[in-house]
Amino acid sequence: MKFGGTSVADLEKIRNVARHVRREVTAGHEVSVIVSAMAGKTNELVDWCEQACDDYDASEYDAVVASGEQVTAGLLALTLQDMGIAARSWAGWQIPVQTDGFHGKARIMDIPPDNLVAALDEGKVNVIAGFQGIGPDGRITTLGRGGSDTSAVAVAAALGARCDIYTDVDGVYTTDPRIEAKARRLERISYEEMLELASLGAKVLQTRSVELAMTYNVPLRVRSSFDDPDGPFQVTEDGRGPGTLVCEEDEIVEQQVVSGIAYSRDEAQVAIRKVKDKPGVSASIFGPLADAGISVDMIVQNVSADGEFANLTFTVARGDLKKALDVLAREKDNIGFGELASSDEVAKISVVGIGMRSHAGVASKMFRVLSEKGINIEAITTSEIKVSVLIDEAYLELAIRALHSAYGLDGA
Amino acid sequence: MKFGGTSVADLEKIRNVARHVRREVTAGHEVSVIVSAMAGKTNELVDWCEQACDDYDASEYDAVVASGEQVTAGLLALTLQDMGIAARSWAGWQIPVQTDGFHGKARIMDIPPDNLVAALDEGKVNVIAGFQGIGPDGRITTLGRGGSDTSAVAVAAALGARCDIYTDVDGVYTTDPRIEAKARRLERISYEEMLELASLGAKVLQTRSVELAMTYNVPLRVRSSFDDPDGPFQVTEDGRGPGTLVCEEDEIVEQQVVSGIAYSRDEAQVAIRKVKDKPGVSASIFGPLADAGISVDMIVQNVSADGEFANLTFTVARGDLKKALDVLAREKDNIGFGELASSDEVAKISVVGIGMRSHAGVASKMFRVLSEKGINIEAITTSEIKVSVLIDEAYLELAIRALHSAYGLDGA
Repeated sequence: MKFGGTSVADLEKIRNVARHVRREVTAGHEVSVIVSAMAGKTNELVDWCEQACDDYDASEYDAVVASGEQVTAGLLALTLQDMGIAARSWAGWQIPVQTDGFHGKARIMDIPPDNLVAALDEGKVNVIAGFQGIGPDGRITTLGRGGSDTSAVAVAAALGARCDIYTDVDGVYTTDPRIEAKARRLERISYEEMLELASLGAKVLQTRSVELAMTYNVPLRVRSSFDDPDGPFQVTEDGRGPGTLVCEEDEIVEQQVVSGIAYSRDEAQVAIRKVKDKPGVSASIFGPLADAGISVDMIVQNVSADGEFANLTFTVARGDLKKALDVLAREKDNIGFGELASSDEVAKISVVGIGMRSHAGVASKMFRVLSEKGINIEAITTSEIKVSVLIDEAYLELAIRALHSAYGLDGA
Repeated sequence: MKFGGTSVADLEKIRNVARHVRREVTAGHEVSVIVSAMAGKTNELVDWCEQACDDYDASEYDAVVASGEQVTAGLLALTLQDMGIAARSWAGWQIPVQTDGFHGKARIMDIPPDNLVAALDEGKVNVIAGFQGIGPDGRITTLGRGGSDTSAVAVAAALGARCDIYTDVDGVYTTDPRIEAKARRLERISYEEMLELASLGAKVLQTRSVELAMTYNVPLRVRSSFDDPDGPFQVTEDGRGPGTLVCEEDEIVEQQVVSGIAYSRDEAQVAIRKVKDKPGVSASIFGPLADAGISVDMIVQNVSADGEFANLTFTVARGDLKKALDVLAREKDNIGFGELASSDEVAKISVVGIGMRSHAGVASKMFRVLSEKGINIEAITTSEIKVSVLIDEAYLELAIRALHSAYGLDGA
């Protein structure tokens, strides 16, 4: 069971979490709980590090920031004890959660299960500080933002357990219910689809945790910490229950062609007109951008009729736009281009579904539906199970609702 | 160097601490720094533990509360790095500070110096989370309130270093300067005297830290963290400098007969009249008090002329008075006594000095001075280097000033 920062924001919420744990213990399960820091606490600690040192040492940052989860783990163990449930807390280094040495964004290498199993054998609930481990240098490491999801999946893999992620939403939806009221909660979704959704900005699960769950085949359930914790035990042996189960594709019986519509407003578009179409020109553009730490997403290149010049359009994260334009202006002579245009009023909309592998026509339906609504497509990218398009942000809601209906996702 | 909670209360104060460290590093010293949690932080964490669980598990309490020092250590290491000084933080378990298993009030068993020495050899400042260690069970322990002083002395002993305790006063005074403006800062004081002063309520140093310094002969300097940190290097090779040096008796050349006047308002007096003077009666009184966790300090017993009854007077901490009276009322039939009287308007005043060992007349001078001022003595206790009397609290300031003058302690 994993609970994020908003679920453990104060002692009352921690008591609510303890009730969820009690329900599972009462149902006869052996339980290990992974907790984040209290909401806001990690930001406070990060701020302090940044104030203390302009160019901070990631190993000290880790020592400071990991303390947040240590506090929550101890407080949840105490709260469980207060309810008469045997429990003990674990810091990452005590288990130990062995990571590589990349402080601030470490990767878990191994979690020997012996200590956790011994405590379970003594009838205790393990309460584990998420987001942290110990590096080869014997110092505390952290896994980077969202790392507690990864901790939870890694612990579940080490123990051969299922992993229930409790969050502030009650599952994964066909699209954002704030935009389309007819959005439906998915009973199940495949790891691959969840990965596409996670990386597309559906912020329910952290991408690395889904990758890890897929690798070790850990059944991953996303459910709400606001469910009545003292309600009846809700997950059945065959995997039905509240929230959404992220699982292997072949465990999903009634697979839809399209599972969901994702979107991202965190997009900005850069258009470079009249680029000399010569070998090495792409490198002269994208090399300096990469050096500046700017990730480029969609890229479209149109060669003009005479073949001499090309127009190049690409997208970056909205917060990187100004920096990208600065880099390009600086490199203008080196690249050689006519004009530079940009917009931060664009959005990306994506149709995701495992069924696309075996069903043609998903992309063409998308283009037709958008065209019927008069929505222009600025750029397109595809993967085996996803089609993404860039559109004017003003049309985003309209597009989502039209596609949601067209792919038969509308609920009651 | 050890800095308490008020000296590291925020990032600006931590930067001030870093300047003190820089001064010592610049003077060519190898430096290890012990820090407390930011002021108020430990109380907040303790409150949370108490709210989480009525009868909290001390090992979880330790896991939660020790996080405060971990944060400060990391932030000071970062601040030093920001000033261009190589530094790294240590949690207690990393060094390791090995303690016994008494969670919440553990005692340090050993500090292997190897890790700290290796970092010093690499030119780094060690920044150590005070107040904490690791128990035989591999879990975090804390040393109890004031434990950071003890951590500092133990680290100094392990490294063969001197120990400078930075606090919010600039040394040990002949008496409380808020009561007697003529109080003088002592250049030096012996461990034994400091122990008497510490246990008498002069809250400059924690008693256990002084005991430890005496055992391992660690030169202990009490000085102010508000001194100009960028002033010239101030402690000379022969031990002169700011603050007060706590050291061996024979290192104090101009030893005064009396070094200081201490006092405590945290006193309450209980008088039991007409106690049957028979064997076992003391046990019937003090046994139940001890069972109730009440410490008794001064005891005076007067047997009446006929030898049948005695009057018994003793003191307890003011906060224990009500509980003590309840215990005695409950045990009245068992003890057998006439009346019970009490007062919480009493205070203890103590004259402390190594010189008493070789100079008679210190106690008699005390009694004479108090008598001349018309101050009645309710009870007396003595040790080899201390005379304490209990008086009416209303006369406390008058008594302190009279004694301070009589023993020649008045400064300019």
